[in-house]
Amino acid sequence: MTSEGVEPGTVRPGGRTARVRESVLRAAGDALAEHGFDGLDLADVARRAEVGKTTVYRRWSTTTGLIADLLDDMAEQSTPRTDTGSLIGDLKANARLVVKTLSDPRQGALFKSVIAAATCDARTAESLHRFYAIRVQEWAACVTQALERGELPAGTDPGEVIRAVSAPLYYRLLAGGGPLDTAAADRAAEAAAAAARAGVYVM
Amino acid sequence: MTSEGVEPGTVRPGGRTARVRESVLRAAGDALAEHGFDGLDLADVARRAEVGKTTVYRRWSTTTGLIADLLDDMAEQSTPRTDTGSLIGDLKANARLVVKTLSDPRQGALFKSVIAAATCDARTAESLHRFYAIRVQEWAACVTQALERGELPAGTDPGEVIRAVSAPLYYRLLAGGGPLDTAAADRAAEAAAAAARAGVYVM
Repeated sequence: MTSEGVEPGTVRPGGRTARVRESVLRAAGDALAEHGFDGLDLADVARRAEVGKTTVYRRWSTTTGLIADLLDDMAEQSTPRTDTGSLIGDLKANARLVVKTLSDPRQGALFKSVIAAATCDARTAESLHRFYAIRVQEWAACVTQALERGELPAGTDPGEVIRAVSAPLYYRLLAGGGPLDTAAADRAAEAAAAAARAGVYVM
Repeated sequence: MTSEGVEPGTVRPGGRTARVRESVLRAAGDALAEHGFDGLDLADVARRAEVGKTTVYRRWSTTTGLIADLLDDMAEQSTPRTDTGSLIGDLKANARLVVKTLSDPRQGALFKSVIAAATCDARTAESLHRFYAIRVQEWAACVTQALERGELPAGTDPGEVIRAVSAPLYYRLLAGGGPLDTAAADRAAEAAAAAARAGVYVM
């Protein structure tokens, strides 16, 4: 498989090519976390990754293409959902994972940078929305199981429940209102479960 | 009152000075909505506002100071809360106002820009958090009234309920998951009310 004629951000290579991709994406994530998206520069990423500039420019072309590929990789590498056997247990695990990610210095800064980049660029927004859609789909299976166990009203939209868990935690990250801690995570999970039980997410 | 020795972003003048401030803040909002925060430039804002560059530099010093003053002005100018007589009525009015603001082309772009700016700069983040704290406090009175009417469990935190209404709407703006429409607004209000009734926001 060659990268020729492949749309930047869609290449899925193996071997040395995979190692180069891994180094470049790690360097891109470091640069985004340290300097924000407006400081992202392909030449700087190549230097950090110890990869030839030409390779980086040929494969990713633009910082937008590089962020898109980074988000695809983050979606692939993300932790699988848990299965605790109860809706509230699963939603709390999801909320605590979101809090752990957003309150981690590198990951929190990286997410802020990518969210900021998405506000300025439609293609980055599309990549970011795809990232969240993939993560929501992974965890939505917990809600589907809860529906099968009869824990929730029939017709409940699983994706809406999972997005409801994340939303107050992202709000705290960006708009304030209190710390991103375990109490905030558990409250987000309990709020989503209470609203779901009340039938708010029946579509 | 002179602007001498006054911290940028804190001046509250009257008369001609107030008209200059109004023009400059409107121009700053237009520039942020059109070009994003990384395109914000004091000389460009002065030109748009038809105000001398020196005046703008002397009064606001930096783009950070200008954004801080714009956010303070937005908080002051914001629509007062409604009083429909019921918690769900008030929360729906709040949610619909948030949707109207975020789905307005100029206001939506302006909020995205300011959120992006806040991810890169601690002082802007502080100004943005203060803006939301003021708006939350305004609407929290609806929850306090609902508590007095016995609609919610004693000890419910009014601010948490109001933030819960906004959170899924900002999540849609930034992370996707569906359109910002009246259905989304009403669902956000119903979810916050259901969680509040279930005692999730009792602190």
